[in-house]
Amino acid sequence: MKTKLILLAAILLSTLTINAQRNELNMPDIPGYVTLKCDFHMHTVFSDGNVWPLLRLEEAWRDGLDAVSITDHIEYQPKKTYIPINHNAAWEISQARAKDLNIILVHGTEITRSMPPGHLNALFIEDANPIDTSDFMAAVEAAVKQGAFMQYNHPGWKAQEKDGIPKLYPIHLELIAKGWLHGIEYFNEYEHYPLVMDMCRDHKLAVMGNSDVHGIISEAYKMPDYTQRPVTLVFAKDRSHEALREAMFAGRTAVWYGDFLAGFEQYTEPLFRAAVSVAAPFKKDDKFIWFELVNHSDLPMELTGGPAGAPADIRLPAHSALIVKADIKFLAEPVVYNVSNIITGSSSTLRVELTPGK
Amino acid sequence: MKTKLILLAAILLSTLTINAQRNELNMPDIPGYVTLKCDFHMHTVFSDGNVWPLLRLEEAWRDGLDAVSITDHIEYQPKKTYIPINHNAAWEISQARAKDLNIILVHGTEITRSMPPGHLNALFIEDANPIDTSDFMAAVEAAVKQGAFMQYNHPGWKAQEKDGIPKLYPIHLELIAKGWLHGIEYFNEYEHYPLVMDMCRDHKLAVMGNSDVHGIISEAYKMPDYTQRPVTLVFAKDRSHEALREAMFAGRTAVWYGDFLAGFEQYTEPLFRAAVSVAAPFKKDDKFIWFELVNHSDLPMELTGGPAGAPADIRLPAHSALIVKADIKFLAEPVVYNVSNIITGSSSTLRVELTPGK
Amino acid sequence: MKTKLILLAAILLSTLTINAQRNELNMPDIPGYVTLKCDFHMHTVFSDGNVWPLLRLEEAWRDGLDAVSITDHIEYQPKKTYIPINHNAAWEISQARAKDLNIILVHGTEITRSMPPGHLNALFIEDANPIDTSDFMAAVEAAVKQGAFMQYNHPGWKAQEKDGIPKLYPIHLELIAKGWLHGIEYFNEYEHYPLVMDMCRDHKLAVMGNSDVHGIISEAYKMPDYTQRPVTLVFAKDRSHEALREAMFAGRTAVWYGDFLAGFEQYTEPLFRAAVSVAAPFKKDDKFIWFELVNHSDLPMELTGGPAGAPADIRLPAHSALIVKADIKFLAEPVVYNVSNIITGSSSTLRVELTPGK
Amino acid sequence: MKTKLILLAAILLSTLTINAQRNELNMPDIPGYVTLKCDFHMHTVFSDGNVWPLLRLEEAWRDGLDAVSITDHIEYQPKKTYIPINHNAAWEISQARAKDLNIILVHGTEITRSMPPGHLNALFIEDANPIDTSDFMAAVEAAVKQGAFMQYNHPGWKAQEKDGIPKLYPIHLELIAKGWLHGIEYFNEYEHYPLVMDMCRDHKLAVMGNSDVHGIISEAYKMPDYTQRPVTLVFAKDRSHEALREAMFAGRTAVWYGDFLAGFEQYTEPLFRAAVSVAAPFKKDDKFIWFELVNHSDLPMELTGGPAGAPADIRLPAHSALIVKADIKFLAEPVVYNVSNIITGSSSTLRVELTPGK
Repeated sequence: MKTKLILLAAILLSTLTINAQRNELNMPDIPGYVTLKCDFHMHTVFSDGNVWPLLRLEEAWRDGLDAVSITDHIEYQPKKTYIPINHNAAWEISQARAKDLNIILVHGTEITRSMPPGHLNALFIEDANPIDTSDFMAAVEAAVKQGAFMQYNHPGWKAQEKDGIPKLYPIHLELIAKGWLHGIEYFNEYEHYPLVMDMCRDHKLAVMGNSDVHGIISEAYKMPDYTQRPVTLVFAKDRSHEALREAMFAGRTAVWYGDFLAGFEQYTEPLFRAAVSVAAPFKKDDKFIWFELVNHSDLPMELTGGPAGAPADIRLPAHSALIVKADIKFLAEPVVYNVSNIITGSSSTLRVELTPGK
Repeated sequence: MKTKLILLAAILLSTLTINAQRNELNMPDIPGYVTLKCDFHMHTVFSDGNVWPLLRLEEAWRDGLDAVSITDHIEYQPKKTYIPINHNAAWEISQARAKDLNIILVHGTEITRSMPPGHLNALFIEDANPIDTSDFMAAVEAAVKQGAFMQYNHPGWKAQEKDGIPKLYPIHLELIAKGWLHGIEYFNEYEHYPLVMDMCRDHKLAVMGNSDVHGIISEAYKMPDYTQRPVTLVFAKDRSHEALREAMFAGRTAVWYGDFLAGFEQYTEPLFRAAVSVAAPFKKDDKFIWFELVNHSDLPMELTGGPAGAPADIRLPAHSALIVKADIKFLAEPVVYNVSNIITGSSSTLRVELTPGK
Repeated sequence: MKTKLILLAAILLSTLTINAQRNELNMPDIPGYVTLKCDFHMHTVFSDGNVWPLLRLEEAWRDGLDAVSITDHIEYQPKKTYIPINHNAAWEISQARAKDLNIILVHGTEITRSMPPGHLNALFIEDANPIDTSDFMAAVEAAVKQGAFMQYNHPGWKAQEKDGIPKLYPIHLELIAKGWLHGIEYFNEYEHYPLVMDMCRDHKLAVMGNSDVHGIISEAYKMPDYTQRPVTLVFAKDRSHEALREAMFAGRTAVWYGDFLAGFEQYTEPLFRAAVSVAAPFKKDDKFIWFELVNHSDLPMELTGGPAGAPADIRLPAHSALIVKADIKFLAEPVVYNVSNIITGSSSTLRVELTPGK
Repeated sequence: MKTKLILLAAILLSTLTINAQRNELNMPDIPGYVTLKCDFHMHTVFSDGNVWPLLRLEEAWRDGLDAVSITDHIEYQPKKTYIPINHNAAWEISQARAKDLNIILVHGTEITRSMPPGHLNALFIEDANPIDTSDFMAAVEAAVKQGAFMQYNHPGWKAQEKDGIPKLYPIHLELIAKGWLHGIEYFNEYEHYPLVMDMCRDHKLAVMGNSDVHGIISEAYKMPDYTQRPVTLVFAKDRSHEALREAMFAGRTAVWYGDFLAGFEQYTEPLFRAAVSVAAPFKKDDKFIWFELVNHSDLPMELTGGPAGAPADIRLPAHSALIVKADIKFLAEPVVYNVSNIITGSSSTLRVELTPGK
């Protein structure tokens, strides 16, 4: 008997899409740490966002995130005619749902000033009300007293910084000196700020990347132009609120947006190694070897500057494989490339060794 | 400095698509065996297909296949006015490219008769010419002498079998008695034949699934209606021509098409177990536990018939996660489901145990 | 000189998607009327919706709509702990933006009672406050005094109507007798209620179809499963608030959702005629004619029950063409089909005549 | 009664996709002419292509083309070991199918020499055999005697022209002087040659754009990177073989590929006007007008260089609408833009006037 099996399948699938489904973000763990995917900058109707807080958790669940923070502005409240100011509202409304969805919810808020100091997120706070005070340093102190991780937001945002170049003003250096600044955004919404990598390296701060979403995530980041929102990858000892916090204060982060990853070598090199497998040659002759590269992650890999005897450039899309033909000498020595879409500094990218002979 | 990073990414990706890229078919290995993805039934201009043989290898590479066979008809040659008959042509033309693409190429042909016996593929042959003989049993003998694996093709094809019900005619039973029949197609092109599962179980034959493609694979199986072509999964000791052959004669196969998998429990149960992970509960109260199911494979899982205290049905799309809320008793006992899209017989589906408490 | 033109194009397109773009809904006008696409049932944070009112206008603009109404519940206010009750808030907030986007904004609200009478939308009101009164008939009277068009919402919604069968209870018949009921929803969210077509025909009411959206339109209706939200097509003398109102009270509507259209013959027959063109035969022989059908609309057409000498079924996807081979007698007589996805009653579909000979 | 209407729709659509469907290419007619979409450069297994000729017609039907020519190489026959040389084979095989699909099939071939003269297509021939002669001018003469339209193919192809710059060598000028050259390819496969616009203008030749496909069209040009293959638009008096020929010899063509159109102003200006409608302002105040632009075609429009008081740039995607806010003075004078993706010469683009006040 021949039946129309495929139609049954079509029904099945169309029903499935009604349920909110969680799409795994495929970015591997690295030795010693789990890789948590996080967004620490989001808005709701309790400041200038356009959605109710619970929607942020549904978006996070669907996007495969492990941790988020809703960070409504303290000082910017354009909806106050209709919605009374309540700095802890989003947190109160969201807690129970976060637990049901197994998402780590970080209590946060955004201190919102003109530049300098610009905007700073206070993460891991307990109560946003004491932070609502006119003196900036007093506001930061109120947050830090609660154990806050302080993040300098979008430092090159042209609305506040005409030339678009991120800067550490004296007030930021003062924060750093006091131990009151812990991270800077490299990715924010659709932007990136190359110099932030160097600032973070110089001052031992965490590199951060967040959406700063005000509207709808699925509309702001749509395939094929935008594969996903900017996220902060946090390399934590386990998947818990406490381990997340420890890792962030220790600066174990990298940031990922679209086809680009930025982070220090000690984290991005093992990430590359976990994401890309190099197989032993499946074919050899007197002069050449042929071997397969497989990318198991959602990040495409753009290898450039290959040595003589190997392809100059190798483009390895997410979840795909390629065959590399190279000189037989590479049985005995590694093939060295730059990964031009993994950024390690304002003017450097990751260097990797492929070793088909091993 | 804020630059337009995303535009660079767009260029990078659009360039990437020019290269033929291999999309991994995500179906896990099972303990003791690698899972080879294969298509043993394809046509070219050397019978009634519409493409040059090399295209079949490019398609196979892109589709993530490990092994293929081009099986042009011996007896049906509609292009002979323009292309002289040459039963080994596709094999001759394709060998070098298969080696370059690391694809196992199986020399094959299709013996093409009216029903019974219908059409049979001879796989793992050495020369198709001796098989071009008018007596059917002589043709099969010529193939078997070369060590052929004989496959009974599309047994319920309505062009040959009016009622669409696959049958084992005396001539097929004679082949089986002689050890001259080794597998039957359960999936062919867009069709499936439920009774083939029982025939294969009764006669210890391999379940087979193939595309029988004549045109273009990427046009015949297009998302979202068709996720991929029908394939035979072969559970082999390693990824080699010899191991493939050993596994097929040993009957270690399953077949996969769209949202459906068919195969005996001994292979499909470990496949399910390798594809779906059941996490320990992340939340508990007096009455309930909450735990995550993650599907790491390309096959959606449709769990039905759940017990009291657990969801009746769970639909777990490919590469996604879901949260299951269930009675706390399931800390101590497994939650049993039918996987309604994994078929184990003409009227049975796979039974699985989820054990969140372990 | 050969340059990489296509890459420039890729950039151009990726930039374009940042701008909100309006996608035209391709459904033709009919003789004498423009076809306005409308959604008269939507929620925001001012009742149980999850978005700020302005988002509803942005969604409507992108979706190619001509008119909308935000209809927050009078009696159901689950967010009142955080947002004070204000029945006219969405209207106040949205007016200016509607004018900027050239969208006709209809002031509305939803009277929300248990069944019977269930939920009713009051459209074209001036002030929602007088409608906030405990006596149901007094609430409707307050709306009708303002000139409201009263719509009976989702009459077969199982949360209120266990058997899912829509009914006209005595209270609805009383409304009809008083001239206080003007339309009934046939489509609501993902549902449809076949009997509504007959109720509307019997009582000369307008057939209505709306999204009743609480979340995000682009997430609720996603390709390929959902081509667009349910909409009410209103056949108006021009594209104005006053003409819209006149047409609705005159019952000149049809409803469209996914692949289905429902409406009386006097509107759906000319719509079909405007959407599908039948070309003169491009080929003839002694027995047959060959002619092209082209569907210029976004609605696929499913023609069934064809006469002897013509295809039994013709499936004509949106914006596509097909060749029909038919008996030569159809040069002299029309080919008659049912359009099985254009619904004209609870058990009838549209009958159309194709006349290739004309 | 509430039923699952949407599932029925899903079935309906999945079945539809099994049929080959023709996608209309939306590019409007211009006053006095129908706009025929054509591809005059394609290969099959009868030279170095990889498909059987009938597949080219199926592709053309699906892609909404009106006319095609299969132009296998005379001199390059890499498959001759398996397929005997037959210059008219593709034509013989394809004629009947072209008639059934209502596609105008133009008999053609490709004269294949090193540069100069490079490759030339002979279109509208009657027999390719006399063209198979070693002397180049004799070959062209044999084609021209049959009434051929001669097209100079991919003049900047780097395999033949190291610097990628297209040139008219003495032999081409000789052909032009004799009236033996009638068109030059501006678009070929993924390439474009800007200087060809000037050559065609100087020598009164037709601008041509073709796919030169050897593999599979649907794989070579895939969304989102490639919206469609390169086509030649021919502005013909009607949709017939004879009218097509007349229009081509008269030079009434433009070429379209992806987001770019190239052609002389006398054709591209009316095309723009037919594709984009400018509505009267829907809103005015003392200083500004607001009006809608709608693009009814498949070609996005990139308007740049806007005047003071109007947007500098307007990006109007295919089948979309935008609202333009402009100074009130534009009620009395046109808003002038360059359409930067409609190319009229090697360094010029189309200039258009939008007149919202009219």
